[in-house]
Amino acid sequence: MLTRIDHVGIVCRDLGEAVERYQSGLGLILVNQEINEEQGVNEAMLQVADAPAGTSYVQLLEPLGPDTPVGRFLARRGEGLHHVAYGVTDISAALASIGATGIRLIDARPRHGSMGASIAFLHPAGLGGVLTELVEAKYRPPDRQN
Amino acid sequence: MLTRIDHVGIVCRDLGEAVERYQSGLGLILVNQEINEEQGVNEAMLQVADAPAGTSYVQLLEPLGPDTPVGRFLARRGEGLHHVAYGVTDISAALASIGATGIRLIDARPRHGSMGASIAFLHPAGLGGVLTELVEAKYRPPDRQN
Repeated sequence: MLTRIDHVGIVCRDLGEAVERYQSGLGLILVNQEINEEQGVNEAMLQVADAPAGTSYVQLLEPLGPDTPVGRFLARRGEGLHHVAYGVTDISAALASIGATGIRLIDARPRHGSMGASIAFLHPAGLGGVLTELVEAKYRPPDRQN
Repeated sequence: MLTRIDHVGIVCRDLGEAVERYQSGLGLILVNQEINEEQGVNEAMLQVADAPAGTSYVQLLEPLGPDTPVGRFLARRGEGLHHVAYGVTDISAALASIGATGIRLIDARPRHGSMGASIAFLHPAGLGGVLTELVEAKYRPPDRQN
């Protein structure tokens, strides 16, 4: 059902500075940057450089303001890991299957994520306190199913 | 330099319960469980089921006691994401390269991790507050360099 760790989401105070450090320090490659008004974030996706295309990203998240979910996370916990996302080939089927096991769904139906993906979040309760995301990527990388 | 997100480390109160939830809820496969006295944890590695072998794990960590790094994390922050680990093909070369960019190293030299891997930690400062690990796996999966 889950095909990979798609990305980890990291909350930062200054997106430009964090992007620079992940590029220069860990050699990641910036592939996308966009403002998501719905989620209240300015976000950047950086690919793990030597991973197969489309498989392993770091998502850096700067809140658009203090009164956003990510802004409140930053005020309460500081910078750091925010969520983990797993790739799936069929997000609706995965949500139905996971929901049937008793894991609580934040999104009962998929919504739009960055880079054209369909995404849905699972509640941290029951998953070791970890906000968990499912991602059905828009473009399938050439070397694998999804 | 980095070839994949190898795993995310998640701190939990009850390892058995967390393993059961990740198996039943997300379909992960338990591949290893061991006590690491040096790090003060009882830990389990679960593979993302439909990922290529050896590439994407969830590491669940239960502290052996309150006076351990993971025990203090649990007391301070509760259950949740603890670190992210990236695969590398040559951990000594990666440490030298990353250290040269100014990223602070917790481990200047590799040490033993779970499943026979060589590991080293990077300091959260400069990486968006994220405790970051490098992993050179003992066995290379058949379908990729590491």
